[in-house]
Order: sequence, then structure tokens, then C-alpha cells
Amino acid sequence: MIDQTRLPAELVYLRIRDVRALWTAIQTLQVRGAPAIGIAAALGIVIAAQNAAPASTAKLAAAVEAAADYLATSRPTAVNLFWALDRMRRVAAASQALLPAVFLDRLAAEALRIRDEDVAMCKAMGRHGATLLRDGDTVLTHCNAGGLATSGYGTALAPIYTALEQGKRISVYADETRPLLQGARLTAWELMEAGVDVTLICDSMAAHVMKTRGISAVMVGADRIAANGDTANKVGTYGVATLAAAHAIPFYVLAPSSTFDFSLKEGSQIPIEERGSDEITHSFGRPHAPKGVKTFCPAFDVTPARLITAIVCEKGVLRPPYETSLKKAVAPTGDNSSPNPPIITRGK
Amino acid sequence: MIDQTRLPAELVYLRIRDVRALWTAIQTLQVRGAPAIGIAAALGIVIAAQNAAPASTAKLAAAVEAAADYLATSRPTAVNLFWALDRMRRVAAASQALLPAVFLDRLAAEALRIRDEDVAMCKAMGRHGATLLRDGDTVLTHCNAGGLATSGYGTALAPIYTALEQGKRISVYADETRPLLQGARLTAWELMEAGVDVTLICDSMAAHVMKTRGISAVMVGADRIAANGDTANKVGTYGVATLAAAHAIPFYVLAPSSTFDFSLKEGSQIPIEERGSDEITHSFGRPHAPKGVKTFCPAFDVTPARLITAIVCEKGVLRPPYETSLKKAVAPTGDNSSPNPPIITRGK
Repeated sequence: MIDQTRLPAELVYLRIRDVRALWTAIQTLQVRGAPAIGIAAALGIVIAAQNAAPASTAKLAAAVEAAADYLATSRPTAVNLFWALDRMRRVAAASQALLPAVFLDRLAAEALRIRDEDVAMCKAMGRHGATLLRDGDTVLTHCNAGGLATSGYGTALAPIYTALEQGKRISVYADETRPLLQGARLTAWELMEAGVDVTLICDSMAAHVMKTRGISAVMVGADRIAANGDTANKVGTYGVATLAAAHAIPFYVLAPSSTFDFSLKEGSQIPIEERGSDEITHSFGRPHAPKGVKTFCPAFDVTPARLITAIVCEKGVLRPPYETSLKKAVAPTGDNSSPNPPIITRGK
Repeated sequence: MIDQTRLPAELVYLRIRDVRALWTAIQTLQVRGAPAIGIAAALGIVIAAQNAAPASTAKLAAAVEAAADYLATSRPTAVNLFWALDRMRRVAAASQALLPAVFLDRLAAEALRIRDEDVAMCKAMGRHGATLLRDGDTVLTHCNAGGLATSGYGTALAPIYTALEQGKRISVYADETRPLLQGARLTAWELMEAGVDVTLICDSMAAHVMKTRGISAVMVGADRIAANGDTANKVGTYGVATLAAAHAIPFYVLAPSSTFDFSLKEGSQIPIEERGSDEITHSFGRPHAPKGVKTFCPAFDVTPARLITAIVCEKGVLRPPYETSLKKAVAPTGDNSSPNPPIITRGK
């Protein structure tokens, strides 16, 4: 996978061969973006089992459990991580009676299925989200919820890519997204690579841009969405949503239904990761703040549902009240649904 | 004066000996902060006249005019620059009949008077502003409107210093203030030097901090205030004001009355400086954004008067409607007022 910490200076691919290296890659944001973290974790479970082989199926299953417990400690906020690990655990549990080689095949198939589903979900989100964009629109986005955050088109950027394929002209303002500059390093990079008209701004300029530059819509991703629609995403999203409401600009969250967490009634229950002060006080390892300064560095914030115009998932454009629209979107409807909502399985 | 671009790594004093060096110091933000720019420009006029001597008074006066025209091109938004240059021009015009040495003395006295008035105005703003703070309050500020931005206590930080002297316990959250990190480099530094409990955050975290950390008030400076109270200040201020309103947190602007510009009816008439894209795309000279990325880099934004709870100047705490309260604050009231409002002269 691409080492996202090296972009945009260098395009470097990482080869991950053990679970410890994967844990570090997730923790240090070499791979980031909620869907991409989930896919990486699922593949990490396969690596754990492969590294334990040859051994009995019971031993492989134990290795899977240990790896899942370990990888679950890498980052706390994005629910896709736990969702993907749970899917892998369930496949392992259901495969205990199989030969070791078949057990491994089942795990690999599930991990690749998670990846393929992600590609399909991104395309579906792009299709649904593009209905919200007209020719000539200008979208403001925060952080990176593009192809780099997924294995496909991305979530927040998927409607932009789809709209462009449909011949619509779409411009983008990208918040640089302090402290780690995912907007400057990743979003600007991938949109420029795709030939999209993108303008980079500092996060603090978003309000002025909304007032003076004709923003048609805000589109962002999500790391976890509570049952009532409250949405955890990269810190700064809540501020952007508040500013969008003040300027009567629609605010859209784009995320696969694997991001929905029905075990949480509202956003205040979502754990918010705090990261090290170096992310605020240093650039390229050099300090730009006084030595020993106290910092507060939440990696995420929670946008209340009332500020969200719509949540776009692979099932469609969901509108308030989200208590009902989110549940309805993931309810079993027949041939292509999982028996265990909120997990959506596809292509079976 | 302190080279503010070297802080907090190094405390370096600049010796400015010619007008060109001063123009560069203002343009490159070695000296920044609206009041400090005005004082520096006034002293620059003295330098220009000193460097032209020995010569006739007419020649010195011509040097003053040329230097004032030149320094006025260094930065466009802070009105204190033009205000200070106009004061120096008027003293020069009124001193044309004097001997060269006396002409020089008059100029130097006026420049030092501008500086001394600034010290007194900062103290007065601190006294008035401290009435808005209670023991245990937490203030959020944006950019640097502290001692470094003035020749005294600062503007936005003056009430904090005064409240602390009064024995109140005040904590501060400082927005780092991208792109040039004046909050991280300057505000955090000077508050730490003064022993104030300060926590540094990224600009994008202000909304989350307002929601979760009990912010009592926002205090910011200003670069220009139109007749209706619309206020230009460091980019991001308008966003912070919008967020403060959404969280029912009082939003205070602190600025000397020299910041009032009654020639402008409203904020949309204030010229907004745009700066180079390197400020967004590079850190310490190293790029962190893709090469050639398009940027938009306004240095200021305009906060509409309706979002401002009060404007604190050296005359007191001014409340809406600002059309009347601003004018009233600078109206001639007798012994200590200038005959030419909005210019306040003191200590005569």
C-alpha cells in the first residue's frame, strides 16, 4: 500500500509482512482513512494466520484472535477497524472445522471481499452523491476522504469523480487540515493527479471562502456515525459544519454503512483519540512553538446530526431524521443483505 | 525591535537604519501587529529625515513625504500604518518654517508620542477589558494581539494581563493561526514568558474546544474597524466569531481607536491583503503540498458587527449599535482630545 506519510514528496509503496508492522502503519498514519484502515486490518488478519502456518486450524484460529485483539488497539475512533476485525473473527470462528489450508483460503477470501465491497461502495456513493452536484458547482472538503482513504474512489471525493465523469465541471476547495495536513498532502495531490480544479486553503480560511467564493456544498467523510446521525470525523469537521450552516451551504457526510455504529445512541459516546503534541508543535521535526508548551490535540470531533443535510452511503442519500433513515438503509431487504445488520455484505 | 519571524526559536533584535530595511521588515512580518506597524512606520519617518540631514527643512520635508508614500505600500490592511504616517506628515507640514534641527526634533517627539500613547492605550484597554473577565475564566484568542503586536501590553491580551495583576485566575487557549503560526510562535511564547496558563491548539480545533472546554470569552485584536463595527483581523477571525456565536460565547474585539476607519461605511470596503502561496505550501522552506498546487491566501477576513459582543478601545467597552458608539468614543470631549477625530492624542 502507499505510504501516505511520504506524499506528496514521494510515492512510496510499503510491503507489510507482519502484524506488528501493520499496527505501526495504522498508528503512524502510513495508512489512514476509515475504510482503508478496515481493509488493511482485514488483510493483517490474513498475514497473522499465514505467518502462523503450518500449524493446526486451532492454532491458526488462536493467531487470528490474538492479531485481532492487537490490531484493535492501533486506533480508537474509526469504527471500520473494529467492524472489519469482527468480520474476520466471525469467518475464523465459522471455519474451525476446516483444514488449515482451507481456513487460510476462507480468511483471504473474506479480506479481499471487504476490499472489493469497498470499491463497489465507493462507486455507489459516487453515483448517489453526484445527484447532489450540478454543473459548475464548487465543493469544499476537509481532510482526505478520497481514493487514498479507501481502496477505490473515496467517500467524500467519490461524487466529485463521478460528476466529472458525467461531464459536470466541479471545482474544489481543500482545507489543508492541520495538524497533519492531509488536505494539502493527500487531497490536493490526488485531485491534481485526477485533473480536478483544486484550490488549497488553510482551515482558518474556510469561513472567508464560504462568504466570498460561492461554495455550493461541503462534502466530508466519517470515521463513525452514531445511531442518531451524529458523526465523528477529522477534527475541524464540526467547525466546518457550523460555518456551512451559518452560510446556508448544504453539508454532506459520505461514508459506507460500515461506518454506522448502532451500539452508540449519540455522538457524545464516540471515543475521541488524542494524539501527541508534536503534531501541533513541530513541522518536519523542527519546532515552531515554544519548548514545553501545553497542547490539546484531539484527532477527531463530533458533528451533531442537526448540522448534517444528508448522509450518503452506498444505499443512497439518507435524510433526517437519521434515527430511522440510517436503520432503514441497512435493514435486510432480501437477496444481497447480511443476516447481521449493520454489516452489509455484497456480491455473494 | 524584536524580529518576530525568529521567535520562538531565537530572541533576536533588529537595528533598522534606513527606510528600505523598515519597509522590508513590515512586509516580511519581522514587525507585525497593527499598532506595532504604526509605531515602526512613525519611527521610520524619523529615520528618513535623519538620513536626509544635514539639509534644508524643505529637503527634509520632501524626504518625509517620499518615505511616507513608500512605507504606505508595505502592507494594505492595517489602518494604523496609514494613521501613523498621516500624523507624521501633519507634523512635518506644520513644521516647515522651523530650523532643520527643530524639524527633526518635532518628528522624533511625535513618533515617540505615538509609542507612548500606545503604551497608555494598551493599559487602558486592559483595564476596560478586564471588567469582562471573572476569576477562573478561560479565554480563546486567535493570532497575536499581545505585547509583541504593540509597544505595551497588547490589545487582545491586555485584559488577560490586567486580570492576572488583579489576582484573577485566567487560562488561555491560543489558536496556532495558520499560515504563519503567530499563535504558536508568538502568543504562546509571550503568555508562557508571562507565566500565563496557555494551551496551544490548531485553528481547526476551536469549535471542539468551545463545545467541550468551557470557553468564557473570545478576545481578538483588529487591523481595521469600519464605521459600522465590521472588523478586519487575521484570517480565521470571522470563523472564530461565527463559532463563538453558535456556542453563545461572547466575542470581544480589542483595538485602539486608531484602528477605527470612519471613511469606510462597512467591512466590505476594507482592502484584504492576499499573500504568496508559499505561506500555505511550505514549512521552514520545505514543501508539504504538491508542486504547482493552486492556493488562495487571504491574510485577513472581515467579521460582521452583528457577531461582535463588544469593541474595547482605550475609551471603554463599546456596545452595539457601533455606528453611534464608535463615533461617540472618539468625539472631542475637552482637555485630552485631539481636534481631529478619529485621532486620539494623549498626555499633552
